[in-house]
Amino acid sequence: MQTALIVGAGLGGCLLAIYLARRGYRVEVYERQPDPRRSTRKRQSLNITLCERGLRALERVGLRDEVASWAVPVAGRRIHAVDGQLAYQPYGNAGEVIHSISRSDLNDVLLANAEREPGVTFHFGKKCVGVELEAPAVRLEDANGGANTRAVGDVLFAADGAYSAVRFQLQRTEHFNYSQEYWDQGYKSLRIPPRSDGGSLLGADALHIWPRGTRMLIGFPNSDASTSCSLLLPYRGEASFESLSTPDRVERFFAEWFPDAAPHIPSLSEQFFSQPANSLITIRCRPWSFGGKALLVGDAAHAVLPSHGQGANAAFEDCQVLDACLEKCGGDFAATFAAFEAERRPNMDYMAQLCIEHFVELCQLVGEPDFLKRREIERALSALYPEAYEPLYSMISFSTRSYVEARRVDARQRRVVDEIMARSELAAALDGAAVRDLLVRSATEEA
Amino acid sequence: MQTALIVGAGLGGCLLAIYLARRGYRVEVYERQPDPRRSTRKRQSLNITLCERGLRALERVGLRDEVASWAVPVAGRRIHAVDGQLAYQPYGNAGEVIHSISRSDLNDVLLANAEREPGVTFHFGKKCVGVELEAPAVRLEDANGGANTRAVGDVLFAADGAYSAVRFQLQRTEHFNYSQEYWDQGYKSLRIPPRSDGGSLLGADALHIWPRGTRMLIGFPNSDASTSCSLLLPYRGEASFESLSTPDRVERFFAEWFPDAAPHIPSLSEQFFSQPANSLITIRCRPWSFGGKALLVGDAAHAVLPSHGQGANAAFEDCQVLDACLEKCGGDFAATFAAFEAERRPNMDYMAQLCIEHFVELCQLVGEPDFLKRREIERALSALYPEAYEPLYSMISFSTRSYVEARRVDARQRRVVDEIMARSELAAALDGAAVRDLLVRSATEEA
Repeated sequence: MQTALIVGAGLGGCLLAIYLARRGYRVEVYERQPDPRRSTRKRQSLNITLCERGLRALERVGLRDEVASWAVPVAGRRIHAVDGQLAYQPYGNAGEVIHSISRSDLNDVLLANAEREPGVTFHFGKKCVGVELEAPAVRLEDANGGANTRAVGDVLFAADGAYSAVRFQLQRTEHFNYSQEYWDQGYKSLRIPPRSDGGSLLGADALHIWPRGTRMLIGFPNSDASTSCSLLLPYRGEASFESLSTPDRVERFFAEWFPDAAPHIPSLSEQFFSQPANSLITIRCRPWSFGGKALLVGDAAHAVLPSHGQGANAAFEDCQVLDACLEKCGGDFAATFAAFEAERRPNMDYMAQLCIEHFVELCQLVGEPDFLKRREIERALSALYPEAYEPLYSMISFSTRSYVEARRVDARQRRVVDEIMARSELAAALDGAAVRDLLVRSATEEA
Repeated sequence: MQTALIVGAGLGGCLLAIYLARRGYRVEVYERQPDPRRSTRKRQSLNITLCERGLRALERVGLRDEVASWAVPVAGRRIHAVDGQLAYQPYGNAGEVIHSISRSDLNDVLLANAEREPGVTFHFGKKCVGVELEAPAVRLEDANGGANTRAVGDVLFAADGAYSAVRFQLQRTEHFNYSQEYWDQGYKSLRIPPRSDGGSLLGADALHIWPRGTRMLIGFPNSDASTSCSLLLPYRGEASFESLSTPDRVERFFAEWFPDAAPHIPSLSEQFFSQPANSLITIRCRPWSFGGKALLVGDAAHAVLPSHGQGANAAFEDCQVLDACLEKCGGDFAATFAAFEAERRPNMDYMAQLCIEHFVELCQLVGEPDFLKRREIERALSALYPEAYEPLYSMISFSTRSYVEARRVDARQRRVVDEIMARSELAAALDGAAVRDLLVRSATEEA
């Protein structure tokens, strides 16, 4: 029986452990943090969204329903203007939803399931402080002051996130291409509790967005009717993490910028000051593997901005694709990793770029007339011609098409919408023959 | 008297030491290699080209003439076809030259001059193994097995090249944006000795280029009538560093690909196998400084591909610009470094991109008809209208315009050449009124 080492017991590491165990490997997972179930460490109230591609990867190992039971389905976003006005934008057509879930809840579910797999062992409080790629082996520091240890395996998977210790070693090998790119804003998480009667204070049927240029508040509904918020701010300058340096300034900032959210956030400034600002980072690198010895997966290979909610979904999809490559390559790790990277890297390169563009859109354009008009046309086309028009957001969130294929289709469809935006007679008759012809012609050109 | 630490006694480090000494700093320079003058270590026969902006930075400290005396002025490139046919392309107008110089000769001249400056001390065989950015201080390992030492200064300059140890520390600080991008080919250096009568075997009036798609040989004339060649090959595949694994294969490869060069390279395969292939890398990062404590300069901040011969020139220009910023900011390092980066980074970001594009051009296009026609038009315009048309290459190599300004002018001029290329009646009468009008109109649009 071959031994797979996994560094990192986060979302990707736990799901990968399950996939590898099912394929007959002994799996040893090393995590620098203590066991969350035995730790009193307060975890951030941080939510993510799961979409079809993430759920599909969970479904393959029978976890879709259990995970979904912890999640809240949302069908759109509710935009909060400064004056209190609300606008609702559905994400897709009827029945199309994404799933808001607490990151720690999701991690706990995956961890519990991974631990039940025969051959899977978790080692908590073990920080990876050195990597021997050739072996492959990891050197581990014990969080409780125990002796450093060394673990050797047949293959090593780095699921240790955007600041991956394993990747840091890879970066020192020759011809490793690498980039880390910080976003100009960071975020802090804030929690809105349930209403006293157990309902949701904001409404649990949508994501809530307060777009304010380069500042933004986002609220994710939880299954316990609380809301996990992420507050996005610049690091420096006016109304920034630097300038909001006193409780008074934080309270006044919220009252001015997010007046309809502020009253719902208890101990606002305490929550604000209890944590440092989290960074947002895009990581691109290649190659993702070191011979047939080590492979980067998830954020360690391809951290993207959270604007499309794809980080965890992509990490889960990695596990599913890797499993298929293992199947196809019959235990040849070098061939498996090459096939995996050939399929996944172009997709993640595109997603990295798309998330950067979409972040700008989310911050600055969500409320603007042209953006809204475009969204409206897209929604109408998608409703009128579901076979012929599928918005990019839908392809990413409601389908399991590859990101690269989504890009290709989107580029073609975007030209159609451009033309409709430019010609008012088309915009006025979206259900007319001219628009239908345009869509048919566009699809034909491609084929 | 304040102490400046410099890591790296290469081209940039030596010139920076001179500039800083003139400004009244005590300067301690730490270099991992042994003193080249007391070492028997064989140095690569590697040449670089100095152009006006590099020479200007040397001139400011009185070194232009001494350096130029070691260099060979060349006015163009001679293209060697596989069939032995030669074609000559001048780089600019009459009198416009770049200067080919042995990298080690240049380093020796700078080192000797830096050592003569009061307050400058060189410490060779001292490898930087740790950096304390806050101090600032460096921890140094002694190459001869002596005890590790620690050096503290008022300010730290990293002139330690593309693989900078100091930058490696910076990369672990928060919000440091970084990318390293390897080129798909590497290079080895080969030496062609002088002719037995003391002349040059190939002709010392030009750079010699043997363009062969993704393989290329380049010959740089030396002042002793020898020629330093760089052989550029892919790492893998046919006719690559990997496939050329035996002396026989190397000899056959040269006879087939570079038949007119091969006979002039003595002990060809011994030279070939005596060294590993050198990598080509593009480094982009930001910020270049850590508070007012540490600053990256030269390749450590902005390594570019060698296709425009700008690496050393840009490092020298860095020294000149930094000196001006020190002057302007009156000893405030934080303000100095901010001003330096604001001026230099946009220029180097553009040069990084340009060198990548030009490398493709050098490898693949130098001999192609469209490329040659475009060059011919550019040369003619530049000769006919020297005030109104300055080719990009000339702005980079014969002027001290900033790279960013060169980009702006080039974009405008490129549109003119595009139009001439597209309209044969214009190409047929470059000295006619129509072309002159085009140039005047283009210049006016910009103004």
